[in-house]
Amino acid sequence: MTTFGRIFQVSLFGESHGPHVGIVIDGCPAGMPLDETDFATDLERRKSGKQGTTKRVETDAPTLASGIFNGRTTGAPLTIWFNNEQADSSWYDANKDMARPGHSDFAAFKKFGGHNDYRGGGQFSGRLTVGLVAAGVIAKKIVSPALIEANLLEVGGSVDIQQAVRQAEAQGDSIGGLVECIASGLPVGLGEPFFDSVESLIAHAVFAIPAVKGIEFGAGFASVRMTGSQCNDSIRSASGASATNHAGGISGGITNGNDLLFRVAIKPTSSIAIPQTTINMKTGEQAILDIQGRHDSCIALRIAPVVEAVCAIVLADLLLIAHLRPRIWK
Amino acid sequence: MTTFGRIFQVSLFGESHGPHVGIVIDGCPAGMPLDETDFATDLERRKSGKQGTTKRVETDAPTLASGIFNGRTTGAPLTIWFNNEQADSSWYDANKDMARPGHSDFAAFKKFGGHNDYRGGGQFSGRLTVGLVAAGVIAKKIVSPALIEANLLEVGGSVDIQQAVRQAEAQGDSIGGLVECIASGLPVGLGEPFFDSVESLIAHAVFAIPAVKGIEFGAGFASVRMTGSQCNDSIRSASGASATNHAGGISGGITNGNDLLFRVAIKPTSSIAIPQTTINMKTGEQAILDIQGRHDSCIALRIAPVVEAVCAIVLADLLLIAHLRPRIWK
Amino acid sequence: MTTFGRIFQVSLFGESHGPHVGIVIDGCPAGMPLDETDFATDLERRKSGKQGTTKRVETDAPTLASGIFNGRTTGAPLTIWFNNEQADSSWYDANKDMARPGHSDFAAFKKFGGHNDYRGGGQFSGRLTVGLVAAGVIAKKIVSPALIEANLLEVGGSVDIQQAVRQAEAQGDSIGGLVECIASGLPVGLGEPFFDSVESLIAHAVFAIPAVKGIEFGAGFASVRMTGSQCNDSIRSASGASATNHAGGISGGITNGNDLLFRVAIKPTSSIAIPQTTINMKTGEQAILDIQGRHDSCIALRIAPVVEAVCAIVLADLLLIAHLRPRIWK
Amino acid sequence: MTTFGRIFQVSLFGESHGPHVGIVIDGCPAGMPLDETDFATDLERRKSGKQGTTKRVETDAPTLASGIFNGRTTGAPLTIWFNNEQADSSWYDANKDMARPGHSDFAAFKKFGGHNDYRGGGQFSGRLTVGLVAAGVIAKKIVSPALIEANLLEVGGSVDIQQAVRQAEAQGDSIGGLVECIASGLPVGLGEPFFDSVESLIAHAVFAIPAVKGIEFGAGFASVRMTGSQCNDSIRSASGASATNHAGGISGGITNGNDLLFRVAIKPTSSIAIPQTTINMKTGEQAILDIQGRHDSCIALRIAPVVEAVCAIVLADLLLIAHLRPRIWK
Repeated sequence: MTTFGRIFQVSLFGESHGPHVGIVIDGCPAGMPLDETDFATDLERRKSGKQGTTKRVETDAPTLASGIFNGRTTGAPLTIWFNNEQADSSWYDANKDMARPGHSDFAAFKKFGGHNDYRGGGQFSGRLTVGLVAAGVIAKKIVSPALIEANLLEVGGSVDIQQAVRQAEAQGDSIGGLVECIASGLPVGLGEPFFDSVESLIAHAVFAIPAVKGIEFGAGFASVRMTGSQCNDSIRSASGASATNHAGGISGGITNGNDLLFRVAIKPTSSIAIPQTTINMKTGEQAILDIQGRHDSCIALRIAPVVEAVCAIVLADLLLIAHLRPRIWK
Repeated sequence: MTTFGRIFQVSLFGESHGPHVGIVIDGCPAGMPLDETDFATDLERRKSGKQGTTKRVETDAPTLASGIFNGRTTGAPLTIWFNNEQADSSWYDANKDMARPGHSDFAAFKKFGGHNDYRGGGQFSGRLTVGLVAAGVIAKKIVSPALIEANLLEVGGSVDIQQAVRQAEAQGDSIGGLVECIASGLPVGLGEPFFDSVESLIAHAVFAIPAVKGIEFGAGFASVRMTGSQCNDSIRSASGASATNHAGGISGGITNGNDLLFRVAIKPTSSIAIPQTTINMKTGEQAILDIQGRHDSCIALRIAPVVEAVCAIVLADLLLIAHLRPRIWK
Repeated sequence: MTTFGRIFQVSLFGESHGPHVGIVIDGCPAGMPLDETDFATDLERRKSGKQGTTKRVETDAPTLASGIFNGRTTGAPLTIWFNNEQADSSWYDANKDMARPGHSDFAAFKKFGGHNDYRGGGQFSGRLTVGLVAAGVIAKKIVSPALIEANLLEVGGSVDIQQAVRQAEAQGDSIGGLVECIASGLPVGLGEPFFDSVESLIAHAVFAIPAVKGIEFGAGFASVRMTGSQCNDSIRSASGASATNHAGGISGGITNGNDLLFRVAIKPTSSIAIPQTTINMKTGEQAILDIQGRHDSCIALRIAPVVEAVCAIVLADLLLIAHLRPRIWK
Repeated sequence: MTTFGRIFQVSLFGESHGPHVGIVIDGCPAGMPLDETDFATDLERRKSGKQGTTKRVETDAPTLASGIFNGRTTGAPLTIWFNNEQADSSWYDANKDMARPGHSDFAAFKKFGGHNDYRGGGQFSGRLTVGLVAAGVIAKKIVSPALIEANLLEVGGSVDIQQAVRQAEAQGDSIGGLVECIASGLPVGLGEPFFDSVESLIAHAVFAIPAVKGIEFGAGFASVRMTGSQCNDSIRSASGASATNHAGGISGGITNGNDLLFRVAIKPTSSIAIPQTTINMKTGEQAILDIQGRHDSCIALRIAPVVEAVCAIVLADLLLIAHLRPRIWK
């Protein structure tokens, strides 16, 4: 299922090399000013074409196909889609029986009996995250004045990001990265204990992003080696502000008045220019695969705005559930 | 919301010091042999009373209140509850306005306007995980012959677990731990891309467990520092088996024929015997809090069976969705 | 699935002759005063023992097992259960292979491979509606000051209800009935177009009640024979109040400021004292079945409070979604 | 929310006078042959242009925007949209403050603070049912070899449908109608007791269709006046086939082996050419409204294929849940 959310609900559709990718967004308050220009900044941040990213550069012009009237949202589902105009399927057609290591090819082939669209990963492609970024733009307006900001901290273990990317490209290889996301200004009390904990919902949404392999909140994995007296955040004011933020702003699954803070592990792009051992899915035989065509050598460079977007999608839903934002925009 | 799952669906209820805690389990196939003894092993693994765990020792005898007839499941919702017989609320009653650092007290007080049951954390308590373990017993039967096993790898940064626990107790402090969970024998093709990725669903369920602050699949955070040529798993057979398992058994969000593998970061128990700085929630004033009463000095010691249980709950749901198990037990 | 609702969410459990029946209610605001006595009036309205109803008379004393503290709701899931103390399974044990006409026996036997609890209809029994009535009591508090009232209009085609029931009992037969439900004082704007229309949600919940075979809103089936100029309700004031209420208070799926009004068709109780032709489910052979034991000759006599309850459950959910009621009770 | 279904899940979008209306369909098995021509027959049945229907005639050419590859479904969400090319908004722009009696105008204006798209009813329009019909085409393939057929039984109380429509048009008035839907060849055992009863799910989906005001299964409202001995269906064979079908093929909420049968009450089209009393929503003043422009004088003429479609959508979901159809098409 590609639907997510309880009140602010999104449904993704499209494939990497199909005619369009897009998203349906239900539950947005009516009366919010919105036009195509609102999406420009975040779409630009996610865009390819810069060093370390794929040479397939789409215009990423959003079509607002429903839910807008006279420059404002109507309360009806918003549909936003993007054309795929720069896809080149020739390499995929020629290699459709080969399972690219690290990609979904083998799992998808088995799951869908070979009927999946193999071109560019089909419905599994990171191309679909353009719709998430669009939904995030709207979600951030709902979440405002709280602020959400995701940044790339390092790639390939280095904070000299340009240098690390150049080196990976020179070797025909790819590298991973670490993204940190902080949401400040949230009210206390979002989320529920157990299955609707803020951690559960954020993690659910973040792992929907292709290439994510880990998430930690606050001190996260470091808390494994801490004692309680080190890890506990001493509350210092009636607003809940604490001396440290090892909890990442969440206690008992609920926002506690401090910044929501989490880090996301992005694996290296699976497509590399170095030949790899794999199998032919039709014959089951071993083969050497030489992936050509265009791909990001460091997809982490483009993922921060997507992390920011899915964080906003979760928080918009929780704020609407918590009755802290009106259904009619003011 | 304390409900989770699409076809195999669980709903938690109860509080730490209320009369009962329990779970309603919908979607279990009819005809599965089941009685109270089936729960004994996993409940024992989670049980307190051993070194490093709380001195509140409940009998944890399950009451099967619905969904069973003639020793088999009927297809109706299963209700399983446990009595709380050993709760002692005196310390909580005396300190109900104090926000215990690291706990949900402050967030819950604000969220519920002070109406939350503050005794032992109320609905936020790890006590409720006894119901998850019970549901996991049933889920593991559905998942069988696939096997799920979670183990504690280290506590407080040490693999000498007994020694680390003794030291923390001697200091009146607490320590965290690292749990690893492996599911073997799963079919290829469970999960969906994007919002129903196996990572999304497992992470959602695992973060429902109190004290969890991080999760990583396969190489996880280490993949941040790997190159693609190191991280990609070369597929070596028609079953999908690969030379390495850096993906943790999931590609594109879908099981890929290798072991599902993830690690979970457990923070140190928040309750410690060392005085801490906090606030009085009613007055907003700073205060020093000296937590007495009984608590685990290393809750990680009891969490492996809970991680195993929620992993089983997710996989049972995915297997039923994938049509790989019948609705009528055979 | 026996779970219903988006924010105010209920999960039913139990069987007619099992130890308990009950309900878990999630999403109730914290701070609502609540104790066992609040349920007395509505449970009494549903209770058996009066003429035309079964001689199985349960005490229907609710156990509030979670979600209550110091006489108020805590914001945690409420669990309410009832003991089954008066069940007599002897007739069912002796006739367990016989499909009682009009009942779920045959469908349940096939669906669950014979593992269903056949005693008194098991999980299909109207006995479970006691939990719905309990949830309705809470829902009506959320909906207040809007008022919901369901009444029995006629039984067996007669408004002389006592006489019709006496006659049916004298013949060992059963009769159906017609229930009308009116909710007044609702705000304009509840519901959504299409799948969350108020009609969709009310109908969904009402057809969950055993023995319901039809529902109509406002003029309902009579509108089939009306012209638009007769059927349209002329709006007469800025509140939306109209000269007539053929729409039953709903336009485009949304409450329109007039009374919500619908009628529900209740079929005659399936259990009758007259021998009937059916089959033996194990052998497939024809048989004559003589149902003994205790049953309602007119279940419609007890259904009005259940209709009222499920209407309240839907409206409580919609009011919480619409942000018209606080999450914290005041 | 405009999303419906658990495994086979649809999400509607669009407005009457916006650029497009459409639907996203998730959960369709992979490998199903599908192209634009598959939709022609059902879209033609719903189409306007015949006597008694609106003169706004759209081409209704479906765009298959995702989920199809090489003429077969891929297992990814299917997106199907239709252009709105014949909308004329002039009358609506000139009368946007007037609440058309019987329509959603007043409720939508209040719900969305005046931000709703008022042209042709916006998101409330029957225009969106074109997407439901498209989804129904796919659902019927999943349900096959079971057959679903909906027919118009009468309009305005008459079986001479052409004559009744001519008369209504001559008077500038509109008339309602009665639609019957029958699904044959279904397996025993679809649905669940209580909230996922087949009646609950079908009623939920059918009331999503604009203009529906009632539904009854089998004997329905007539069963109110029957005795149990008349109403009970005697089971006559091991397949569940019964002598009569007063239950409409559903016992205890579950399909029982007989035809699923229900009837739907369609109110007269709200737009009529006769002046009506209403209010100006901005000023609250009384006004006489003379609706011009194009509309159906008997919308019931076009609703049978929509009823058939939503019935198929529900049954496809239940069949997939019941594991009676594979996720991979064969």
